[in-house]
Amino acid sequence: MRLVMKFGGSSVGDGKKIRHVAQLLMKYYEEGNQIVVVTSALGGVTDMLMENANFASTKGKVTLVKEFKTELTNKHHEAVKEAIDNPKIAEEVLQILDIRIDELEKALIGICYLGELTPRSIDYISSYGERLAAPIISGAIRSLGVSSTEYTGGEAGIITTGDYGNARPLEKTYELVEKRLGCRLESQIQVVTGFIGENEDGIITTLGRSGSDFSASILGASLKVDEIWLWKEVNGIMTTDPRIVPEAKTIPRISYSEAMELSYFGANVLHPRSIEPAMREHIPVRVKNTFDPLFEGTLVVADKFQCRHVVKAVSLIKNVALINISGAEMAGTIGTVARLFTTLASAGVNIVMISQGSSESNLSFVVSEAHVEKAVKALHREFNRKIIREIISDKEVCVVAVVGAGMAGTPGVAKRVFGALGNSMINIIMISQGSSQYNISFVVREKDAIPAVRTLHQEFELYNGNGI
Amino acid sequence: MRLVMKFGGSSVGDGKKIRHVAQLLMKYYEEGNQIVVVTSALGGVTDMLMENANFASTKGKVTLVKEFKTELTNKHHEAVKEAIDNPKIAEEVLQILDIRIDELEKALIGICYLGELTPRSIDYISSYGERLAAPIISGAIRSLGVSSTEYTGGEAGIITTGDYGNARPLEKTYELVEKRLGCRLESQIQVVTGFIGENEDGIITTLGRSGSDFSASILGASLKVDEIWLWKEVNGIMTTDPRIVPEAKTIPRISYSEAMELSYFGANVLHPRSIEPAMREHIPVRVKNTFDPLFEGTLVVADKFQCRHVVKAVSLIKNVALINISGAEMAGTIGTVARLFTTLASAGVNIVMISQGSSESNLSFVVSEAHVEKAVKALHREFNRKIIREIISDKEVCVVAVVGAGMAGTPGVAKRVFGALGNSMINIIMISQGSSQYNISFVVREKDAIPAVRTLHQEFELYNGNGI
Amino acid sequence: MRLVMKFGGSSVGDGKKIRHVAQLLMKYYEEGNQIVVVTSALGGVTDMLMENANFASTKGKVTLVKEFKTELTNKHHEAVKEAIDNPKIAEEVLQILDIRIDELEKALIGICYLGELTPRSIDYISSYGERLAAPIISGAIRSLGVSSTEYTGGEAGIITTGDYGNARPLEKTYELVEKRLGCRLESQIQVVTGFIGENEDGIITTLGRSGSDFSASILGASLKVDEIWLWKEVNGIMTTDPRIVPEAKTIPRISYSEAMELSYFGANVLHPRSIEPAMREHIPVRVKNTFDPLFEGTLVVADKFQCRHVVKAVSLIKNVALINISGAEMAGTIGTVARLFTTLASAGVNIVMISQGSSESNLSFVVSEAHVEKAVKALHREFNRKIIREIISDKEVCVVAVVGAGMAGTPGVAKRVFGALGNSMINIIMISQGSSQYNISFVVREKDAIPAVRTLHQEFELYNGNGI
Amino acid sequence: MRLVMKFGGSSVGDGKKIRHVAQLLMKYYEEGNQIVVVTSALGGVTDMLMENANFASTKGKVTLVKEFKTELTNKHHEAVKEAIDNPKIAEEVLQILDIRIDELEKALIGICYLGELTPRSIDYISSYGERLAAPIISGAIRSLGVSSTEYTGGEAGIITTGDYGNARPLEKTYELVEKRLGCRLESQIQVVTGFIGENEDGIITTLGRSGSDFSASILGASLKVDEIWLWKEVNGIMTTDPRIVPEAKTIPRISYSEAMELSYFGANVLHPRSIEPAMREHIPVRVKNTFDPLFEGTLVVADKFQCRHVVKAVSLIKNVALINISGAEMAGTIGTVARLFTTLASAGVNIVMISQGSSESNLSFVVSEAHVEKAVKALHREFNRKIIREIISDKEVCVVAVVGAGMAGTPGVAKRVFGALGNSMINIIMISQGSSQYNISFVVREKDAIPAVRTLHQEFELYNGNGI
Repeated sequence: MRLVMKFGGSSVGDGKKIRHVAQLLMKYYEEGNQIVVVTSALGGVTDMLMENANFASTKGKVTLVKEFKTELTNKHHEAVKEAIDNPKIAEEVLQILDIRIDELEKALIGICYLGELTPRSIDYISSYGERLAAPIISGAIRSLGVSSTEYTGGEAGIITTGDYGNARPLEKTYELVEKRLGCRLESQIQVVTGFIGENEDGIITTLGRSGSDFSASILGASLKVDEIWLWKEVNGIMTTDPRIVPEAKTIPRISYSEAMELSYFGANVLHPRSIEPAMREHIPVRVKNTFDPLFEGTLVVADKFQCRHVVKAVSLIKNVALINISGAEMAGTIGTVARLFTTLASAGVNIVMISQGSSESNLSFVVSEAHVEKAVKALHREFNRKIIREIISDKEVCVVAVVGAGMAGTPGVAKRVFGALGNSMINIIMISQGSSQYNISFVVREKDAIPAVRTLHQEFELYNGNGI
Repeated sequence: MRLVMKFGGSSVGDGKKIRHVAQLLMKYYEEGNQIVVVTSALGGVTDMLMENANFASTKGKVTLVKEFKTELTNKHHEAVKEAIDNPKIAEEVLQILDIRIDELEKALIGICYLGELTPRSIDYISSYGERLAAPIISGAIRSLGVSSTEYTGGEAGIITTGDYGNARPLEKTYELVEKRLGCRLESQIQVVTGFIGENEDGIITTLGRSGSDFSASILGASLKVDEIWLWKEVNGIMTTDPRIVPEAKTIPRISYSEAMELSYFGANVLHPRSIEPAMREHIPVRVKNTFDPLFEGTLVVADKFQCRHVVKAVSLIKNVALINISGAEMAGTIGTVARLFTTLASAGVNIVMISQGSSESNLSFVVSEAHVEKAVKALHREFNRKIIREIISDKEVCVVAVVGAGMAGTPGVAKRVFGALGNSMINIIMISQGSSQYNISFVVREKDAIPAVRTLHQEFELYNGNGI
Repeated sequence: MRLVMKFGGSSVGDGKKIRHVAQLLMKYYEEGNQIVVVTSALGGVTDMLMENANFASTKGKVTLVKEFKTELTNKHHEAVKEAIDNPKIAEEVLQILDIRIDELEKALIGICYLGELTPRSIDYISSYGERLAAPIISGAIRSLGVSSTEYTGGEAGIITTGDYGNARPLEKTYELVEKRLGCRLESQIQVVTGFIGENEDGIITTLGRSGSDFSASILGASLKVDEIWLWKEVNGIMTTDPRIVPEAKTIPRISYSEAMELSYFGANVLHPRSIEPAMREHIPVRVKNTFDPLFEGTLVVADKFQCRHVVKAVSLIKNVALINISGAEMAGTIGTVARLFTTLASAGVNIVMISQGSSESNLSFVVSEAHVEKAVKALHREFNRKIIREIISDKEVCVVAVVGAGMAGTPGVAKRVFGALGNSMINIIMISQGSSQYNISFVVREKDAIPAVRTLHQEFELYNGNGI
Repeated sequence: MRLVMKFGGSSVGDGKKIRHVAQLLMKYYEEGNQIVVVTSALGGVTDMLMENANFASTKGKVTLVKEFKTELTNKHHEAVKEAIDNPKIAEEVLQILDIRIDELEKALIGICYLGELTPRSIDYISSYGERLAAPIISGAIRSLGVSSTEYTGGEAGIITTGDYGNARPLEKTYELVEKRLGCRLESQIQVVTGFIGENEDGIITTLGRSGSDFSASILGASLKVDEIWLWKEVNGIMTTDPRIVPEAKTIPRISYSEAMELSYFGANVLHPRSIEPAMREHIPVRVKNTFDPLFEGTLVVADKFQCRHVVKAVSLIKNVALINISGAEMAGTIGTVARLFTTLASAGVNIVMISQGSSESNLSFVVSEAHVEKAVKALHREFNRKIIREIISDKEVCVVAVVGAGMAGTPGVAKRVFGALGNSMINIIMISQGSSQYNISFVVREKDAIPAVRTLHQEFELYNGNGI
C-alpha cells in the first residue's frame, strides 16, 4: 500500500516516542508499504515558540532568547539521543538542528530588536516546531537502515495563498507534490513537516487549525495514496468522550460526512477542511493510536462504504450561549434574517447553531460563550427595538449532538433520542436537525448536559461496540 | 364591557348575514356593552375589485367598468334589501352606496384612460370593499333602532406611513382614535372599515395581510377596550385543521405568544402583527364564530393567564421546499451565514424555517415552494462552488408544527412528539425548536404530513377537549 | 437634398404660422428635396397641458377639464381654419383632433378621479402638444397638394428606454426609422411629432430637454439625410445674446464641438445630446429662422470643416453661485475630491464649473444658485471641519464664457480676453479653461457681467460679421 | 524673543556645518533669546538608512549591516570631531551615538533575520537620522558653554496617531510639549529631533513629507513662541526658481495663504500642513539661510499683515500630465463628476489641477505624470464609452502658477499675466483660477514652460525686489 502517515504532537512528544514511531514505520515499510510521514512538532514546542516570540516582541530581552535557545536545543538534542542510535547520523541531525535553531534565534532576536510580531513572523517562528522535529524523525528512520529525506511543506510542494495563519493550498500544489515526492516513494521514507506551506514568494505560511491533518490530506490526495493514516494518542474516533462516559468505544468505520459532523467537539476530531482533499480523491482516512498500533482504529470512508448503524456518536459542546430574538414584524419580513446575521458577522460573532421554527416571529441561535455580550450589544444597536422586540441570552447551556448517517431515512430515531431524554427527565431547550439527518443537535441546561450524553450513549448501546 | 368587534368577509358575506350581524350586535348592545364594529368587505368583493382594476389597466375598456358597476351595485343593493327593513334608512344607505360606486367607477375609468395601475390606485380601489360594506352594516344597526355612524379607517383616526399595500399606523393614531370615537361610545355603535388607513396627506392606504384584524387591534388598543372580538366563521382557534382531523376541537384559552406561533397556517390564524397592539395594552382578543355566537370561542390572553397545557395545537404548512447547503469551509467561517441570507433576501426569498446543527458544515432551511428555484439560482451565482460545495433542494415536503407554551420547561415533550411519530413510522427530515419552546417545527415527506398531524393530535389527546 | 426639418414652438405657434411653414415646405419640396418634418406643439400648448394635468391631480375638478378641453379644441380648430384651405382636408383633420382631444380629456379625467400624477402620465399628457400639432401641419401640406402622413415618434420608430421624462433611444431605433419612413421619402412629406418616443411596451415616453431637436437629430441620423434643419425664431446661433449686445451677429458656420460648448446658455442653444446623433453620422445641422427663410442661418458641421476664427461667441450664465473650499490637509490627500463631489451628487447639486489650481489646498466650483444652500450644508455635514477648514459661498456672481475652436493652439487669445477685461477694469474671480481650448469660462461679479460680455464682443470684433 | 529654530538637512550636513549652527545659536542665545532647536538628519543619512533597511530585508546579509554600521559610525564620529571642541563632551556624545548605532544595528539585523520591512520598522529605522544628529548638535552647544538637552519628538511631547509614515499629532501634544519643554526654556537650548513623534504606546512614528518643518511648527505653536525660524540653505522663499531665472529675488514678507499656494513646487517650499499649527496660533514663520544668517529671509505672517503686492512669485511644476474627458451626456448629469473622481481616487491617482468650464460636456485635469496610465485605464474601465465619449491624455505639458494675494480684487492681473504670455507667443492649454484669487495656474507645452516663467517674472518686475 501507498500511505501517508501523520503523527500528532503527543505521538512524537519526545525522543523515545520518536524512536517508537520510527520502529513502527520500519515495520510497515518492511511489509512493503510506501510511506510519506507528516510530522507535528515535539510535545509542547509550538506553544513554547509562540510564548517566546511574544516575550521577544514585548520584553525585547535577548537574554531570554538565549535561555530559550538553550532549552530548545537541549530538548531536541535529548530527543536525538533517545531516538537515534547511529552516532554518525545523530551527529548529522544535531548539526541540522543547530543550524535551524541558530536561524530561529536570529529571528527571535530580530523580534526583540524590532519589538513587533507580525503575522508573517508568527508563521515563520511557529514553523520551527515541525522543522526541528522532521530531521529527528528522518534521522531515526535512517538510523534503522532505511533511506529518508526531510522536507518542509513548501519544499514538498505545498504552495499556498498568502493568508498568514490561515493559508490555503493553491491548485498547483497537487501536481507539484506528485512531482517532488512521487518519484522517490519506492526508495525512501520521506518526512514532511505538517502545518506548513509557503506562498508563491517562498515565504513560510501555516495552514491554521488542524493544519497537520490538513497537510496529510493534501499530500495523500496529491500522491493518490491508498490510505491516509492519522496517528493520534487515542483509539480512533470514539462513540463519545470517554472522560464523560467510561464505556465509550472506538467507532470502527465512519463516513466522511459523519466525521465532518463530529468535527466540532473534543480532542479526537477531524476538521472538515482536513477531510476535503482526501474526500475529493476518495482516499480513506484512518485514525490510529500510536501506542496501540495493532488496533485498527477508525476508518473514514466515502459515504457509500459506511457501516449504516443508526447512531454512531454523541458529542458535547460546552462554553456556548443561547440567544433568542422575537418580534411580530419579523414574520414575513424578507431581509430581517439577512440583516441579523450580517450584524453578527460584522461584530465577529461565531454562530454554532441556528433554529427558526415556522412561526417566523422568533429565532434562536447558539454562539461561542465569549461572543454573547458583543452579539447582544450589536443586535440592540442595529435593531433598536424596531422589528425585533426582545433579545434574550442564556449562558448556562450546552449543546449535545447525536451523529450518524444511519439516522437519515430511519423513522423512529428522533423518538429514541427524545424518548430516552424524556425518560431521564431532561428538558430540551432548543433543537436543530438539518435535512442531511446525520446530526440532531439540541441545547440543554448545563446541569443536564452530561446526563444527556450518558443517556443517549446508553440508549443507542454505543457501549457494546454496536457500531463495529 | 367596552368591545371592538371585527367581522370577517364571510361573516358579512351578504345581506342576510349582515342582518344577522346587526341582530347580534343589538343583543350585546342591549346587554349594556359599548361596541365599535370593524367590518370587512362583503364576500368576494375585494377580489372582484382587484380583478376589475387589473382589467381596466390592461384592457382599458370602459364598457367592462360599466358592467362591473352594475354587478357591484346589484350585489350591494341586494344586501341593503336583505339587511335593512326600515325603507327610509335603506334609501339613505342606497344613496351613499351609489355615490361611492360612482366614485369608484370614476377611478376605474381613470385607470382605463391612463392604462396604469399604481400602488396608490390599488390601495384606493381595494378600499371600496370595506367602504361599501360599512354603510350597510351601520344602516342595519340603525334600522334596529340604535344610533350608528360609519367611518373609514382614516376618519376613525388611523393615520399611517405612506407604504401603499403595507402601511403601518403612526404613533399619533392611538390618541386620535380615542379623540374621534371615544366620546360617542355610549350613544352609538360606530362602524369602522377594517384594513384601511390614510397617510398624513389624507390619501387612502391599506394595512396588508390580516389588515382587518390589525384595524380591530389598533382600535381596541386606542380605546382601551375590555376585549377585542374577532368574529370569524369557525369556532375560534382549533387544535388543528378540522379538514385533516375531524376530531379537532376549539382551544378555549391561548396566550398571545402561542397565538403568534400559530400564525402562519390555515384559515383560523392571527397574524402576529394584528396581535401586537392588543398585546401592548394587555387587551384580551377573543376569536368567535358568527354563526354560533353563544359558543365562547378562543380567548387570547397575556402569557401569565394562559392555561398551561403542554401542547395546544398541531399545524401543517404545505407548499414549501427544503434547501440544504453544505461545505467544509462553512465551519468556523464567520460571515458565511450572513452572506447566505443576504443573497436570499436580495433574491426576494421568504424563509419559513432554519436549522443549522452544531457541525456548522451544513445548514438547512425551508422556503415558500414558489421561491425555491430563484433561491437555488441566487446561491449558485453568489457562491459559485466556493465555501458552499453542494446545494440540494426538495419540494415534496411539508412542515408540521406542534405549539404550546406548556412545552417550555416540561421534560418529555420532545419524547412524546417524536415517540408518537416514531411509532407511526414517520421519518423526520429536519427539526427546529427555538428556545421559546412554544413550537417544535419539523419537516416530513409530503405523504407523511397528514398522518403526522393526526398522530400528534391523538398523542396529545387534543380531541377530548384536553385544553379546555 | 434629403432633409429633416424641425420647427420649434413659436414657428408653429398658430394656424397662420403653420400655413407659412407649409408653404415653406412646399417651396423646398418643389425644389426636389425629400423632407421629413419634426414638429413641436403649438405655442404655449405644452405648458397648458402640464398646468391642467397638475390642476386635475390636485383639485380633481372635471369641470376644469371640460373648460380646458373647450379652450384646447378652440385653439386647434382655429389653427386648422387658418392653416388649411381645403375644407375636406380640414374636416378630416378636425375629426382626428377631436378624437385625440377626447382621449386627452379621458386621461385628464382619469387623473381627476385618481388624484395622482405619475411620471408615466406626465409623459402621456405632455405628448398631446405635438400629437395635436402634427395632424394640422400634415393637413396643411396636403391642402397644398402634396401627399403627407403624420406619425408619433413611436410610430416613426423611435423606441426608447423606459425613463419617463428623460428617455433615450435604443439602438434599434436607427434601423426602425429607416424601415418605416425611408420608403416613402420620395412620395410624401412625412410629419413626425418631436420630443416623443415610446418604450418597448408601446407606452409613450418623452426625450427631456430639447427633445424636439433630439428627435430631428435621431431621424436625420437614421435616414442619413444631407442636412438637419432646425427652424427657430432667430437668425441662427448668434455671437452673443442680442438683448445684451445689440450688435450681435449670426455665426454662419460653427463646429459640433463649438456648438456643444455654447449649449448651456440662453435661448438659441443646441443641447449636446441633440447634436450627438447627427455628429456620429457627420450630418450637418442648420439653424434657420422660420421668419427669414432666405437667410442662411448657422451651419453646424464637423470640426474639420469649421471656419477657424479665433472666437465665435460670448455667453453669459446667470443664477449661479460660487463655492470655495480650503484646508491644508486637502493637499496631496487622494480621495478628498472624490468625496467632495460624491457628497454634492448625493445632495442633488448640479456643478456648472470647477477650478482647482496647483496648490491643491483650495478648490472653487460654481453651482446653480438654487443649489447653493444644500451644497454648503451637505459639505459641512460630511466634512465637519475635518480636511476642509473653510467653505465660502457667493451668490452675486455670473459666469461668462468665450467660445471658439480657433482659440486652440492660438497664442495670445487669453491675452486678448483678459487684456480687454483688464482695460475695462473688470475683476476676474475665477477662471477655467479646459484643454479643448474651445472655451474660456470665468466668473465675475454680477455688476460686471454685462460689461464683460460687451467688452469681449467688441474685442473680438464679433459685431462686424468677423466670423462670416 | 522665544524662538523655535529648525535646521534642514544641508544646514546640519556635517560637523563643520553643525559647529556653524551651534555658533549661530550661541549668538542668538547671547542676545537674550530663548531657543528650541529642531534638527534634521545629517546630510544624506536618511537615504542611507532607508537604502540599508531595504537591503537588509531583501538580501538579509548581516555583513552589509556591519559595513553600514562602520560607515555610519565614521560619518557621525567625524562630525563630532569637527563640531565639538571640548573632549569630555565629545566623548559623552560619542558614547550616546555608539549606543544608538548599536540599537540601530540590532534593528537592521532583526530585519535581516526576519526578511520583512514593516511600516513600523521603516519609521523606526528612519528615525535614526535625526536621533544621531540631535546629540551632536546638543553637544556642540554645550561645548560652547551653554546648557543643552536633546529629545526625540516623542520625549518632547509629540504624541501622534498610529499611521506609520504619515502620523498626525494628537490634541494633547500641545499641552504636553509646553509641560515638558516650557520650564527649561530660560536655562537651556533644547534640541528636538524633527520629523519624529511617538504613538500612544510609545512606538516611534514619523510625520511624513516636510516632517521637520511640521515638528517646528507644532513645537512653536505649543510653546507660543514669538517666531518659528526655518533655517534652510537658500535666501528664504524666492520669487521663482533661481535656476530658471537668475534674477529671482527673495520675497521679504508673504502671508500664510500665499505660502500655502506656493507649497507644491521645488525645494524652497512650505507644506501647508507645516504651516497650520503656526497659523492657528498666529505665530510668524521665518525662512532663513544658514549660510547668510544676517539676511532677513522671508517672513510668513497672517494674511492681514501681508505686503499686498499684486504678484509675489511664479512657480513651475514638471512631471505632470493632462487628461481631458468629453461626452455629451456629461452635461447636466449630476453624479458624473463624483463618479469620475471616485474612480481616480480608487486607482490611487493624485489630482494636481482641475478645470471644468461652463459647457459641462468636457472636463480637464492634471495628474502626476506617473499616474496617467492608470488614470486613463481606470476611466476606460469605469465608463466603457458610456457618458464619457473620449479620454485624451498628454504628457508633454507643465503647470505654471502665478501666486500673490494682491491679485484678489485687483482688475487687470489676468490681463497682465495673459498679455505677457501672448506677447511671448506662448499658447495656454488649460487655465484654472480659484476664487481665492491667490493663484492663477495654467498648463503650457513643455517647451514653453521656462519662457513662460521668465516672461511672467519679468512682467511683474519680480527681479527688482518689487515685493520688498
